This record gives sequence, C-alpha cells and structure tokens, in this order.
Amino acid sequence: MDRRKFLKTSGLAAGGAAALATPAIAQSAPAVKWTLTSGFPKSLDTIFGGATVLAQAVSEATDGQFQIEVRATGEIVPTPGALDAVKSNTVQAAHTCSYYHFGKDPTFAIGTAIPFGLNSRQQQAWFYHGGGNELMNDFYKGYNIIGFPGGNTGAQMGGWWRKEINTVDDLKGVKFRAGGFAGAVLSRLGVVPQSIPAPDIYPALEKGTIDAAEWVGPYDDEKLGFYKVAKYYYYPGWWEGGANVHFFFNLDEWNKLPKSYQAILKTAAAMANIDMQAKYDAVNPTAIRSLVGKGVELRQFSPEILDACFKAANDTYAEITAKNEAFKKIYESLKAYRADAYLWSQITDGTYDNFMMAQQRSGVL
Amino acid sequence: MDRRKFLKTSGLAAGGAAALATPAIAQSAPAVKWTLTSGFPKSLDTIFGGATVLAQAVSEATDGQFQIEVRATGEIVPTPGALDAVKSNTVQAAHTCSYYHFGKDPTFAIGTAIPFGLNSRQQQAWFYHGGGNELMNDFYKGYNIIGFPGGNTGAQMGGWWRKEINTVDDLKGVKFRAGGFAGAVLSRLGVVPQSIPAPDIYPALEKGTIDAAEWVGPYDDEKLGFYKVAKYYYYPGWWEGGANVHFFFNLDEWNKLPKSYQAILKTAAAMANIDMQAKYDAVNPTAIRSLVGKGVELRQFSPEILDACFKAANDTYAEITAKNEAFKKIYESLKAYRADAYLWSQITDGTYDNFMMAQQRSGVL
Repeated sequence: MDRRKFLKTSGLAAGGAAALATPAIAQSAPAVKWTLTSGFPKSLDTIFGGATVLAQAVSEATDGQFQIEVRATGEIVPTPGALDAVKSNTVQAAHTCSYYHFGKDPTFAIGTAIPFGLNSRQQQAWFYHGGGNELMNDFYKGYNIIGFPGGNTGAQMGGWWRKEINTVDDLKGVKFRAGGFAGAVLSRLGVVPQSIPAPDIYPALEKGTIDAAEWVGPYDDEKLGFYKVAKYYYYPGWWEGGANVHFFFNLDEWNKLPKSYQAILKTAAAMANIDMQAKYDAVNPTAIRSLVGKGVELRQFSPEILDACFKAANDTYAEITAKNEAFKKIYESLKAYRADAYLWSQITDGTYDNFMMAQQRSGVL
Repeated sequence: MDRRKFLKTSGLAAGGAAALATPAIAQSAPAVKWTLTSGFPKSLDTIFGGATVLAQAVSEATDGQFQIEVRATGEIVPTPGALDAVKSNTVQAAHTCSYYHFGKDPTFAIGTAIPFGLNSRQQQAWFYHGGGNELMNDFYKGYNIIGFPGGNTGAQMGGWWRKEINTVDDLKGVKFRAGGFAGAVLSRLGVVPQSIPAPDIYPALEKGTIDAAEWVGPYDDEKLGFYKVAKYYYYPGWWEGGANVHFFFNLDEWNKLPKSYQAILKTAAAMANIDMQAKYDAVNPTAIRSLVGKGVELRQFSPEILDACFKAANDTYAEITAKNEAFKKIYESLKAYRADAYLWSQITDGTYDNFMMAQQRSGVL
C-alpha cells in the first residue's frame, strides 16, 4: 500500500473586504493530491495513457494545484482490487474497466461492454445523451464511487488462437482468456473462460496453460507478443464492439472537491475519452500491417459461430434480467438505443464506410 | 458590431513574500471575457450547442473568471464573416466550419471535410494523433488564428431533392445548396452549386430558387423543415463523411492567456468535440424514423453517381495539389492515413457493425 493522499487549502485565505471581493479564487484553488491506480501496465501507452492525459490536463488547468499521481497496475493494488481501493479511499481514483468487477454484480459489465453491445460512437451517445452514464452512476453509488467514461478501444479483435476454429464444436474445451463478460456467454458453448490481467496473459499462452487469448487489438497485442505463440488472429471481437474504460473517483472525495475542480475533472475525462479512441485509430492500422508481415493469419469468425454466440448472449441476458433489477434497468436502456442506433448507422455512415472500404480494396484510396 | 472584450487581471496581486509563496494562483486567475461568434443559429441545439458546452465548461473550471459569451450567426457577423472577425479581434473566438472559407484558399476545406475524406473517428485520429491539427494550425497561423476540433456530425445525409436522380445525367443543371467543398466537385458533373447559410436554405428551396439542398442529417434537417418542400432524402453525403466543426481563437489573444486558461480551453474543446458527435448519434435515430413517418422517401445514391463523384473529387484534388503547396502537404497527410485507416476499419469494426446491422434488419436487436 502506498497511501499518500492529502487535501489542504492554500494559504491564501484573506479576511474582510478582500475575501468578499475575491471569494472564488481564494476558495477554489486548494492544493489537492490524489493517487490513481490504473488497471493497466505502463507499457501499454494507449490504454494506460488515458490516465496520464487526465492527470496532465488537470494539473495544467489548476497550475499544478490539483495533482493526480498515476500508478500502474500492481504498484498499489492489482487490477481486480482497483474498485475496492477506490471505495475504501486507499486511492482516490482508478482508471480501469468496470467489467473486471462483474463477479460482484454483472451490472458492472455494462459500463465497459457487453457481448453484441454498442459500438464506440454509440457507446458515447448512450453515455452522454442517452442516460447511460446517469444509470451507471446510480448503480456505482452503492460502491461509493462515481464514474466518467475515460477512453474507448473501438471494436476489439477476437483474439489469438493456436488452432483454427470453424464450427461451434471447435470451441468446446478451449481455455480462452477473455475480457469482461465474454466468458459468461462463451461458457455456454463449451469454452473454459479465463480471467487474467494483461501482464500475465503471454506467459500463460506460451506455457500452454491457456489455448487462446484476447486483449484489445493490433497495437497492444503486438507489444504483448501474442503473435509469437499463437498464429490465428480472429475478428470481430463481438464481446467488445466498443469497450469503454472509465475513471472512477471515491464519492466522498469527489463531493469534497470545489465545483471548479469537479468541472475540470469531468472535462479532462471527456478529453481522455476521445483521445484514447483517436490514438487507437491512429496506431492500429500500422500495427495490423506489421503483424500480417510477421506471418499472422487473419481469420473471421464464421457465421455459424457468430450466430451461436449471439443466441448465447441473448440467453445470458434473459437469465440475468429475470433476477437482477439493476442489470435489467440499464440493459433495457442500452438495448432500446442499440436497435435505433443500428437502424440509423446503416443509412449514411454505413453506406459511406462500405463505399470507402470498397475503394480501399480496389487500391484507389 | 458588438465589440466587448476586456482583459484585466484580478485585484489579488500581492507583494513580497506572499507573492512568491502563491504565484500560480495570483497570476493565473485573471478575469477574462471573450465573445464567440457561432456559424450557426440557436435553433440548431446540436451544432450551435458545441459552443455553449465549451463556454460552460470554461466558466465552471475558472469559477466564472473566464467568460465566453456565445452569439449566434448574424448577431455580430454573418457566418462567412466569422474568420475575418476572429482575425481582426472583433471577436476573440468562433465556432464554425473552416470549409465555409474555402474561397480564400481551398486548404480551409480540409479542416472540416473533403469529399470522400475521413469518417468521424478517423478524423479525430488524424487531428489528434496523425499530425492533422498541427498541419492545419501551421496553415491557420497565416490568418492569425489557432483552431481546435470542436464537434463532428458523423457522415451527413446527401440532401433533399425534389426529383429522383438515378444517373449522372440527372445531375446536370440542378441548383444544389451544398456545404463546403462539395460544389467544387459537383460542378464538374453539371451541378450548379449554391453556398447558403442554414437559416436561408428553406426559403430558397421553398421558392424554387434552388432545386435541392443539404444541411447535416435527420435531426437538424427535420427542424429546418426541408421535408415539406422536397420529398427525396438521399445518402450518403459523400462530401462530408465526418464533418468537423472547429473552435477558432485569435492567436494574439490565445497567446496572452495564462497557460492554465489555455489548458482549460483546449480540454473544453475536446469535450465539446466528443459531445457533439454523441448528441447527433443520440438524436438522429429518432429523427430518421419521424421523417420516414412523415412520408419522406429515402434514396441511396446510385453506384454510377458515387463512382463519377469519386473520380471528379480525385480530379479536383489533382488540379489543386498541382498549384497549392499548403493544400498538397495537408491533403497528402490525410490521404496516406485514409488508405491505412480504411484497411483497418473493415477488419473488426466493419465486420462487427455489418453483423449488427444485419441483426437489426432481421428485427432481433
């Protein structure tokens, strides 16, 4: 544990008329120091980087008065301990995926991504203007935390597989490291899901403790080296069509902040949110070329597998909504938006992108 | 003109040791009041709203010390005058589309959207992590302005047409209101392009001064009432695959700001940037249903038309790059990224979205 939090007001407090003339400044720029635990290792500059984008923006906006020290996974607590660490105020903040905590309650899965959920843009629409973030925060309140979207990866890849899988039968018995809620769905099809943080995936795959593993996409995956021990790189990662990382803050600490610092944090979180997707979209195109150059074999999940997984996901949601009110309420909001959003997105965005993709394949872009 | 700018430092300056102990706070929270001219009318809460999102975030982050008064198009200057007004410091800021100014130099078109350019996510990747924003700001410097991305619309619709157009021949002689750089391409195919700000489009279409018009997409277009006077709603708007609005600041005024205020502005611009796309994606799905319910006929541009337009766009770029160094440099950066990005986006994002769209059409989402 490295608990180093202190909150003190600056020495600027002035009495009498001066205080009346300048209350905002005197009251609003206290020195605040927070510690943030990231769910990710420093080596992954994309997903780890979201926290440093936030910390730097907050520091600059406050002339260094509000400092957030960013610590990598494992330095203070391991990834699965991040939420409890924020809840108990061991750290004041975390930057991680809510779905790592679906074991506490499956509702946590919805904050990041659920199988066959929203894509990256739709996720933002639902969070910011579809009531999604308010619904998630009503739920997070029970854990004494408040969350803000803090980065999206886009649709992830479907992971690294040692053997080709063509049919649903091929999935049976495969020990597969999968993020978040994918395991709950895949286990219905015979997969043996594994929950392993980023730094431990490669050794497990190398030793054969697991048969397949997914992380995010080409840029991160190339860094983690999976291509050296598994040849087939599948897509799409249907369990994470637009996975969102979050900033979580201890609710009492959040409530103690001056309104201006709350505004700065919220704004900086939004910047980190758009910045991470932009970074992934900037670096993944080069990485996928590099991987293919190294002999990686790209494979698309077969229609049979996708259809079976879609059905298994819906069966999973039916079971959970029957017994979990919080999940039901939030899932139904997301589902209603998803149907409308995918009607709309195939009209102009979809036809535009499909036309441009066809030009790319024709070599004329 | 309503020129009301003043910049004054707060009355907090203290001498001697106190000043040394608290320089950041004393120096960094001056009262600043800026005026921003929007390129859009207040009635379009989506695209006009980006400026109010920024102004509110900046005010909250500074406890009201940095105020940005947002004025609608025409209140101070009309839309085409926004850039000159910022350049001359009549206003300190504008929130508008750079491509409204392509008459000064076609390079301005690239900041918003060029025909068959980047989609919304790719646009952010290129701006933030592909050198796009730096390249555009090198160019904007010549106009004494600095720009930050401040909202995207997604792929726009292809506008409202009184008659069906099926062939390239059908385009000949059509007087079409089109944003930005579309006219330069469409005129090669016989279209007579018209440049008209939002509030004046409907009367022109109603009176028959023009034959067809495009604005953005379902939500804005429904408000502007085009469906009452033109029945066919085409897609995709290939001239704006991911149109980006910008915040422009007078460069001298920007340079005068304390570093903390610059950081706050930059962060707030990024929030407004992601927020506008999220809002469009939240409201457009409902609006497209509403429009179809009112009898609007959706039509996809034919492959013949799209192919001819793509060729005409490339011919246009070849002509301009041969004689405009600034355009050439920036266009080539965008083009290189576009080819890579559309290779990548068809792998996992593309297959995920296409699978989900198929589910939507099957009625199972």
